[in-house]
Amino acid sequence: MNKELQVFLNKFDELSVTDKELLMQQLDVRTFPKSTVLLKQDQLCTACYFILKGCIRQFHLHDEEEITTAFYTEEEAVVLFNHYNKPLPSEHTLICVEECVLIVGTPKSETDLYTKFPKLAEITRNMMAVGFGKTQEALSKFITSSPEERYQHLLETKPNLLQRVPLHQLASFLGVTPESLSRIRKRIAKK
Amino acid sequence: MNKELQVFLNKFDELSVTDKELLMQQLDVRTFPKSTVLLKQDQLCTACYFILKGCIRQFHLHDEEEITTAFYTEEEAVVLFNHYNKPLPSEHTLICVEECVLIVGTPKSETDLYTKFPKLAEITRNMMAVGFGKTQEALSKFITSSPEERYQHLLETKPNLLQRVPLHQLASFLGVTPESLSRIRKRIAKK
Repeated sequence: MNKELQVFLNKFDELSVTDKELLMQQLDVRTFPKSTVLLKQDQLCTACYFILKGCIRQFHLHDEEEITTAFYTEEEAVVLFNHYNKPLPSEHTLICVEECVLIVGTPKSETDLYTKFPKLAEITRNMMAVGFGKTQEALSKFITSSPEERYQHLLETKPNLLQRVPLHQLASFLGVTPESLSRIRKRIAKK
Repeated sequence: MNKELQVFLNKFDELSVTDKELLMQQLDVRTFPKSTVLLKQDQLCTACYFILKGCIRQFHLHDEEEITTAFYTEEEAVVLFNHYNKPLPSEHTLICVEECVLIVGTPKSETDLYTKFPKLAEITRNMMAVGFGKTQEALSKFITSSPEERYQHLLETKPNLLQRVPLHQLASFLGVTPESLSRIRKRIAKK
């Protein structure tokens, strides 16, 4: 029995004890070592993930440069909706920044689970709305904010990310050079 | 009976004729004149929209400047997931670029409809996944692409948008000045 899954499922009062026990048996929970590549750019995207523990980085290789396009942490789903469920070749690589404990899903396993556990479909729908909201906000911040404001937003929304990922990856995600990010950090530290 | 709604519902073979007839009666379809403000920045966001006809612009007022953060067109949902369903004050204004025919939803009306029409819940879930995919792609394009590449992506994904919205709003959405956008357009025209 997976401890992280048990702790997570216990947050949902709407699931019965029986449902939780069945889900523990039926959900595909796996541990991936640090640096595991879950999906490689240009490969078919056939799985989705939900992070029970760990951090995943998403990047796009452009002229041999890795541009980080997302960081996902605990209790976030990693679903490339444009590619998953078709499936289409991915425009991104997904890599484990740390050892990760993940629920692994496929279109088929999702459909089966939602049929068996309608409450789970509702929970997933709500989590999808939260994830959608975060992505909308990240996009709107990217359009309306300066790199410094984006960095401060990241500090607010994912404060522990700074201890978990190298600075040059954070810089690439914020759309600045590592040197610019260092300057931004110094300016903020002085405030 | 609303003609646009009828045409739209007829695309879904999974809905029975009876379901479609009932949905025609129960969905809240309204026509809004051009320039209607559906939601004002800082107002509570209590409704969501689905566009049967028309175009909606989303913008954020920053230092008295309108920064366009999204354009929505036919068969797209307009749901500010971070604010709707809480409800929280909106960080954006939603305005009709043209006369719009919209399905208007609220958290309550949505829940009621999904209980009565489980197929509709499934359809909405799929449309949400498509919308989520578009937003993920827009964000990743914003991080990885130049303004020229973003403009070309917009030409591919929403080719008719250029005839529907003023150039300065497009420029603000792409994160460039109107002058830069003119130069980009000239460069592309020459190719």
